[in-house]
Amino acid sequence: MPVFRHRPSITPLLGVTLLCAFTSLTASAMEGMWTLDNLPKATLAQKYGFTPDDAWVNKVMHSAARMASGCSTSFVSAGGLVLTNHHCVDSCLGDLSRPGQDLRRSGFIAQRPEEERQCPGMELNRLEQITDVSAAFAQATAGKTGQAYTEAANATRARLESACVNGQDATVRCDVVTLYQGGARHLYRYHRYQDVRLAFAPEVSIGAFGGDPDNFDFPRYDLDMGLLRVYENGRPAATPEFFPLNPHGPEAGELVITAGNPGSTQRLLTVAQLETLRDVDLPGRLLREAEQRGLLNQYGSEGTEQNRLAQKTLRWIENGFKVQYGQLETLRDAEVMARKRSEEAALRQFAASRPELKDTLGAWDDIARATRVYREIQAHLSYTEGAQGYWTDYYGWARTLVRAAAERSKPSGERLPEFADAALLATQRHLLAPRPVDPAFEKVKLAWSLAQMRQWLGADDPLVRQVLGRQSPQTLASALVDGTTLGDPKVRQALWDGGAAAIAASQDPFIRLALATDAEARALRARHENEVKAVETRAAEQIARVRFARTGTSVYPDATFSLRLSFGEIQGFKKNGQPVAPFTEIGGTFARATGEDPFALPQSWLSAQKALNPAQRFNMVSTNDIIGGNSGSPLINRRGELVGLIFDGNLGSLGGAYWYDEADNRAVSVHAGAILETLDKVYHANRLVSELKAGAVH
Amino acid sequence: MPVFRHRPSITPLLGVTLLCAFTSLTASAMEGMWTLDNLPKATLAQKYGFTPDDAWVNKVMHSAARMASGCSTSFVSAGGLVLTNHHCVDSCLGDLSRPGQDLRRSGFIAQRPEEERQCPGMELNRLEQITDVSAAFAQATAGKTGQAYTEAANATRARLESACVNGQDATVRCDVVTLYQGGARHLYRYHRYQDVRLAFAPEVSIGAFGGDPDNFDFPRYDLDMGLLRVYENGRPAATPEFFPLNPHGPEAGELVITAGNPGSTQRLLTVAQLETLRDVDLPGRLLREAEQRGLLNQYGSEGTEQNRLAQKTLRWIENGFKVQYGQLETLRDAEVMARKRSEEAALRQFAASRPELKDTLGAWDDIARATRVYREIQAHLSYTEGAQGYWTDYYGWARTLVRAAAERSKPSGERLPEFADAALLATQRHLLAPRPVDPAFEKVKLAWSLAQMRQWLGADDPLVRQVLGRQSPQTLASALVDGTTLGDPKVRQALWDGGAAAIAASQDPFIRLALATDAEARALRARHENEVKAVETRAAEQIARVRFARTGTSVYPDATFSLRLSFGEIQGFKKNGQPVAPFTEIGGTFARATGEDPFALPQSWLSAQKALNPAQRFNMVSTNDIIGGNSGSPLINRRGELVGLIFDGNLGSLGGAYWYDEADNRAVSVHAGAILETLDKVYHANRLVSELKAGAVH
Repeated sequence: MPVFRHRPSITPLLGVTLLCAFTSLTASAMEGMWTLDNLPKATLAQKYGFTPDDAWVNKVMHSAARMASGCSTSFVSAGGLVLTNHHCVDSCLGDLSRPGQDLRRSGFIAQRPEEERQCPGMELNRLEQITDVSAAFAQATAGKTGQAYTEAANATRARLESACVNGQDATVRCDVVTLYQGGARHLYRYHRYQDVRLAFAPEVSIGAFGGDPDNFDFPRYDLDMGLLRVYENGRPAATPEFFPLNPHGPEAGELVITAGNPGSTQRLLTVAQLETLRDVDLPGRLLREAEQRGLLNQYGSEGTEQNRLAQKTLRWIENGFKVQYGQLETLRDAEVMARKRSEEAALRQFAASRPELKDTLGAWDDIARATRVYREIQAHLSYTEGAQGYWTDYYGWARTLVRAAAERSKPSGERLPEFADAALLATQRHLLAPRPVDPAFEKVKLAWSLAQMRQWLGADDPLVRQVLGRQSPQTLASALVDGTTLGDPKVRQALWDGGAAAIAASQDPFIRLALATDAEARALRARHENEVKAVETRAAEQIARVRFARTGTSVYPDATFSLRLSFGEIQGFKKNGQPVAPFTEIGGTFARATGEDPFALPQSWLSAQKALNPAQRFNMVSTNDIIGGNSGSPLINRRGELVGLIFDGNLGSLGGAYWYDEADNRAVSVHAGAILETLDKVYHANRLVSELKAGAVH
Repeated sequence: MPVFRHRPSITPLLGVTLLCAFTSLTASAMEGMWTLDNLPKATLAQKYGFTPDDAWVNKVMHSAARMASGCSTSFVSAGGLVLTNHHCVDSCLGDLSRPGQDLRRSGFIAQRPEEERQCPGMELNRLEQITDVSAAFAQATAGKTGQAYTEAANATRARLESACVNGQDATVRCDVVTLYQGGARHLYRYHRYQDVRLAFAPEVSIGAFGGDPDNFDFPRYDLDMGLLRVYENGRPAATPEFFPLNPHGPEAGELVITAGNPGSTQRLLTVAQLETLRDVDLPGRLLREAEQRGLLNQYGSEGTEQNRLAQKTLRWIENGFKVQYGQLETLRDAEVMARKRSEEAALRQFAASRPELKDTLGAWDDIARATRVYREIQAHLSYTEGAQGYWTDYYGWARTLVRAAAERSKPSGERLPEFADAALLATQRHLLAPRPVDPAFEKVKLAWSLAQMRQWLGADDPLVRQVLGRQSPQTLASALVDGTTLGDPKVRQALWDGGAAAIAASQDPFIRLALATDAEARALRARHENEVKAVETRAAEQIARVRFARTGTSVYPDATFSLRLSFGEIQGFKKNGQPVAPFTEIGGTFARATGEDPFALPQSWLSAQKALNPAQRFNMVSTNDIIGGNSGSPLINRRGELVGLIFDGNLGSLGGAYWYDEADNRAVSVHAGAILETLDKVYHANRLVSELKAGAVH
């Protein structure tokens, strides 16, 4: 369940019309999250005798889709049926649950079409077209630095995206994506599905069997799947291109391919940037998540309803903690860092040897300087623009409303990017989605995060004094939550519609708080963008030129939550020196079950045990190079048949943010045969089984 | 409240008869935790015209005392009255509290002698004699490594300590202390007070006013004091040597001296050892404490009784977190590490230049290899010998009982050191002290720590499988706590007295658990001692020789929870570029109070506000070089008068574990005048005020 990218910033897909290509220094046979225009064809032909043609590539592109909130999916029927992970529909299950009715716990089956339920705010994007806009950016930002650079880049982005969306067509989404850490920029146009409904999800006890202890591990026994359906004009959308299920699945050693949207890798970062992650960002996030976990576990022990609320959030915190701890271990590994240092030294030496790269020589030091600024502002940035002091949906809504009111009166190109015309719809949908919140739970989270703000900034920090005044975190949190009406989507709608006048007149305490703290948050955001991000991007453009000049045209950019293919094969690995076989079987699930959470099977499985084929393959590992965002990616064979469903990596995959290690790094999938077997024998989901079988390989 | 060394391992004091002296590379004017035989006399004479003679030194030695559990104290009357910090009597207050009667919250005053209450298990040690036993160790361990080295050192230690205690005299305590990370060993004989009673403690709301937010910060307004009294044969002990109180206190710039027991510094460690702290130990402790804090804060919000239990533990966790985070920041500072690297390189270069030091050249690499072994075993070591999976007093008691039964049948020299004859009494007292535990709270902590064990070792780890079986952490924790009778001190006494037969026959589930896991815990402890600690100590002996040859005889050893003097002056500092004055006044307390925890003053202070002199100096900072263990140290002037009570360091002091930075590092004290003023005007503790005034300077 790890390969989910929670709350992504706005980042786009990558597709087929790229012309340029850049290079990194090393690539094992299986390494790479490849753009569709630049597949490792020589390796594929030589190693597997596989030569994908344009038709194959286009079919894959149209059969895959991105979940805007940070997962991957694929179409699995002509009638708009979408396969993804249980953990990708987890927040939808939470949003549709109510006290006394916990859909995460019970699972969900729409036995009839009309029982399919809309997921609040969910959006799917299918890639349609890509345009190289690098030249437009280069022209607009030529000779600019700092604030001027940021403004020019934002304005260019807004202009290109607006033109692409072409008015108010809500079925089109356009995003500019920055590749190679700034080495190229492309404009992506998607078909946008905004009516996405839940058709099936198993109980979380089998969707995430083994819970946090088994997360990122293998052998594994998870039915981490969910089925959605895209609707248009109130009816299931037609999706003539889809991946047919092949229930036989792959064999050991067979070539398997993922078509998904890896969220973010940091393989091209400089050593100074990696050290900043190691010393500042990762420890900070881990300490925060550790304390959140302690709080949520204890809160969840206080009653059934508290447990429902806590578990919904806890799952992501535990997942994030495990990911980041694995990343930190990688960056603490002296050998990994020595390798990064020597790669960087070689690159700098190469640049120094070429007169035409003379202007790039300062790039690494520029980045190092920017990271020092970042280290200096990081704590305050987290608590102003990062809003870490306000762990509650109320504040996020208030911030969006306050900023929208101020930004919407400006020309699109001068707004904060998330309020530019092309992005406004997604921002609005996120704000207005009818997500339930529990005031008592919000008080607990908010009080904790206000105390964190005081802890990390100090009791005498001006922001802390401004926010807390003479109140304790608990007192202030209670006053804010008791006084707000933002939990009601209609109130949010009215404030959105009312604009600046409505915001100015509002007495909602969260609106007042967001207004009062907005100036400092914007100032720090600007400093971060101008003195850190703009410098890093500028310098990364230069480094990309060096890399390109040095190593040619056979490489992939860092992940950007855009469509990538990875090629691997079904293959076991060694754990503590012992070989681990590549497949598990359904029978093993019952052997591992203890009856105690998180190893307790749901009643549906216990009842169906005799009917299930114990030898049916259940989960499997492959050498595909994936990362968070790949959750829900189809695992296909060379014929474009869906043979599995990516849902996790093993522990050895966690360093994948920084480098790919073929010996240890494995992707974990649900076997296609187990999907059909359990939908049929455990859930008796006849309608969905028939629909899947209609397109399936026999 | 930070300068408290919680749960120390057994480490001894350091005193006046040392002959040898070693050196470090740098020393600012104020740097140093000096042994009494090796004071920085030249600096003191030159800078302050102060030349302490033997009588002065002996008086200081006899007027100070160590709290065996990890604090410093001093005698302040001839009748056994002892001054220390509120946070040093905090656990006594907790032990004497019961549901509905929270002495931490209410404070405690014995207005009459017979109201003084014994603190369970508390022990005070006053230094009597020191003997250099380096030669005995050198002879016993000559040519030995690994297990042979460990056994020879343990046997020598047991033999020397036993001979020193001289039979079963319970008023004598003897400890061998290892100085200079192994460069010398000395035997310390103490007078031991085992009947220590509480006379006074203020409410925690003023004892730790400002709570965690203000901890390690300044300006400060804390009455972090407590009064104890040592008894012998049921009557107050006579303590003719004590520090008279000087209520006028010191002036800015005046020389002030601490006489306390700094617990542990790491200033002489090699770079490999510092990197291990930075990469492994500190992050591990911080992540654990962060999650514990989240849990305890939430548990404490569930009710008054839960709050009482949680706060008792939370204070130490918050304190430890702040200390360790400051230490981590220091070790993450590239400049600090560069300086350590260059110091080490210079030392190695010096060793290489001297033929007589040829045998020391491998020492640094030996230590680096030992740290690699440590990194490899650290996780399992923590959960076996470290018992981190069992966050409950029950397990600690069970472990002690199981091991005592096995060890006591061996000759003293072959036992684990904590069970050797000379140490046995302290171990027994700790076990049998009547400390109340709350079963419901123990279940919560234990379940959490069992889940941690599974998280960090993995669900399939042999130890995890052995301990948990098919049970969840919650189920097992409940079964263990419901089944045990170890909460009753009489049961522990019976099992201690019954020895091996009683343990073998016991069906107590904690005894069974401790028995079942003991072999693996002992095996890992042995590996740690033989392959890590023995190697490090051996190599440190060699490095100490190099240091001594290079820099002469003007330096202090790393702190070892033994008596040290530090010399400093009352002096402010700069915080965020702004000057901070060295004193606060009582009036400022009322200005800082908000009425909300942890800035809420107790009713006693609110009632007494008009009577109190607002201009009375309250807290103050000085440049004394202190660290955890110095809590409760007297701050004296050159005439041996008590002018303040050390209770904290500022944020700049947290890096003091690794180096002393005179610009930033400050010790924080309660002013002697504030002690008398508040005992009189707020607490009307007339009896104690009279006693203090009887010896005081007028």
